[in-house]
Amino acid sequence: MIKVFQWGLGAMGGGMARLVRERPGLVLVGAFDRRVEFQGRDLGEVAAFGGRCGVCVCSDPLAELQKCKPDVTLLATGSYVKDVYADLKCILNAGSNCITIAEEMAYAWQSHPQEAHDLDALAHRRGITLLGTGVNPGFVLDALVVMLSGVCGRVDSIFASRVNDLSPFGPTVMRTQGVGATPEAFAAGLENGTIVGHIGFRQSMDMMAAALGWMLDDIQEERQPIISRTQRIAPHVRVEPGQVAGCRHMARGLCSGKVVIELEHPQQVCPEAENMATGDMIRIQGDPSIEMHIHPEIPGGKATVNLAVNMIPAVAAARPGLLSMLELPIPRMTQG
Amino acid sequence: MIKVFQWGLGAMGGGMARLVRERPGLVLVGAFDRRVEFQGRDLGEVAAFGGRCGVCVCSDPLAELQKCKPDVTLLATGSYVKDVYADLKCILNAGSNCITIAEEMAYAWQSHPQEAHDLDALAHRRGITLLGTGVNPGFVLDALVVMLSGVCGRVDSIFASRVNDLSPFGPTVMRTQGVGATPEAFAAGLENGTIVGHIGFRQSMDMMAAALGWMLDDIQEERQPIISRTQRIAPHVRVEPGQVAGCRHMARGLCSGKVVIELEHPQQVCPEAENMATGDMIRIQGDPSIEMHIHPEIPGGKATVNLAVNMIPAVAAARPGLLSMLELPIPRMTQG
Repeated sequence: MIKVFQWGLGAMGGGMARLVRERPGLVLVGAFDRRVEFQGRDLGEVAAFGGRCGVCVCSDPLAELQKCKPDVTLLATGSYVKDVYADLKCILNAGSNCITIAEEMAYAWQSHPQEAHDLDALAHRRGITLLGTGVNPGFVLDALVVMLSGVCGRVDSIFASRVNDLSPFGPTVMRTQGVGATPEAFAAGLENGTIVGHIGFRQSMDMMAAALGWMLDDIQEERQPIISRTQRIAPHVRVEPGQVAGCRHMARGLCSGKVVIELEHPQQVCPEAENMATGDMIRIQGDPSIEMHIHPEIPGGKATVNLAVNMIPAVAAARPGLLSMLELPIPRMTQG
Repeated sequence: MIKVFQWGLGAMGGGMARLVRERPGLVLVGAFDRRVEFQGRDLGEVAAFGGRCGVCVCSDPLAELQKCKPDVTLLATGSYVKDVYADLKCILNAGSNCITIAEEMAYAWQSHPQEAHDLDALAHRRGITLLGTGVNPGFVLDALVVMLSGVCGRVDSIFASRVNDLSPFGPTVMRTQGVGATPEAFAAGLENGTIVGHIGFRQSMDMMAAALGWMLDDIQEERQPIISRTQRIAPHVRVEPGQVAGCRHMARGLCSGKVVIELEHPQQVCPEAENMATGDMIRIQGDPSIEMHIHPEIPGGKATVNLAVNMIPAVAAARPGLLSMLELPIPRMTQG
């Protein structure tokens, strides 16, 4: 049995706790969430297990980790290295392997070299493994591209696109993607950093370049408003014609002045309102060229939850250090 | 530099030798082919490098392996365990890691338990790694399915199909697939074992089941003639209407009497003659369900050559034993 600690009980962390509980071979031994209203309560109530489970949401994660000695801790809190760094150190210092879905941790070696080296050194000292993963970065626009490149003798360039529907997401996502904003408010939000688009393009680029042995000279990102021509109504937002339905975020990776990787991730509510089909697409130009489509797109929330839980046995068995999806065996659903 | 020995210089092995030669970081140190007319000649002449390369095709592979001490030997000769078993033992006994494209070696643990255990034990004794790989089995209808399952919380069933065009292949493939035969001759060929269809369904099934933690009670295979309604002309064969254009080979894996894996691989010449598009398709029923398409299909010959060469660094660095694509990191094209 692999003992699992769940750190963070939002939509993602709650889903992970539920999936861990269903899986034979995994056992939930503890949980933490910074929301004080969750602390001291039964995890089953907080994470909607449909009943109590006998695990209490703690208020002092370091003490709890030292007490229940998990094999693997799942960290599902922030997206940025700066927001998870201290918690990751706490988890590693407590001697637990860790899987985080913080987007910037999917491949932090180039974007955050100091933090990556520090965490790697700490993980080595403690003989434990730290993995960053998630649907994207971590799978669709990087690991899956790398996998497909495995049948290529030569790769000249990569184009990958992920068209998804933000409708199921809550107010925070609507705000950070600029959904429902006027074009002027969108521009101002990009300027002042309240509208961010997708987090993790840089990490996906760096991961692919590392796998393929490429040196990128430059990574350029571009965010444009998706101006709606129709009315779009989602559970948490209503977008009128002329307002912003989402953010078309693109990134280009250059090698010797030539674009070798191009990623596109338009995120919006109700793309079907303007006949845009959702889906994941990967096109490798090379020998051979490969074009892959997944319709509809791999659903982001579910896939992130599942992938994090599916990686638990691999992380428990892996060599020490800060790892990415590149160093671990092919991910897999493991029922048993 | 990783030193590579090429064993087998047919279409696949010759392609591998050419690709190894192009890759910085890899160096060809020796080669063998059982055809005596190749032996003693420069590998560059035999494998169409467009010039001599200073490596001689040897006639005594064991002596040559012991002399040039390769890090990795690529074995590209037969498809069946019985045909490569002695050569694999020779390679392992010489202390070289090995990658073979013998279809049955892609996952031999269930189909050939005795041979798999013997090779695994020998590899462990020598501290070296043996990998079976190839486009299929080894990638399209198994490893790629496993990869996609990584974002699933539950997998109920798998359907995967690979529709390809046999036109580029030579007389041996035409004969073993029954291309150009009458329906009666096709039936007789299936009966007497001269027409075999695809080799490796069993291994793909076993690999996927192992990854997902499934126990298959039964694997059923079925081979049907693809009767042409049109004239089809390929370089090595002409198929008249009413004759056989190829073999539709299917396999079903059952768990508790229910079909949980279904694989389909119709192989024929000129499928476009009857408006059949080539392509690879994977459909996972589960949570979430995923449907993936690759059009046209990943080209089989090239992909097998590339994948075998791309796995060289991973095999050189891997733990000892008989491994499959399940145990190694995500494959990748590695130019550097």
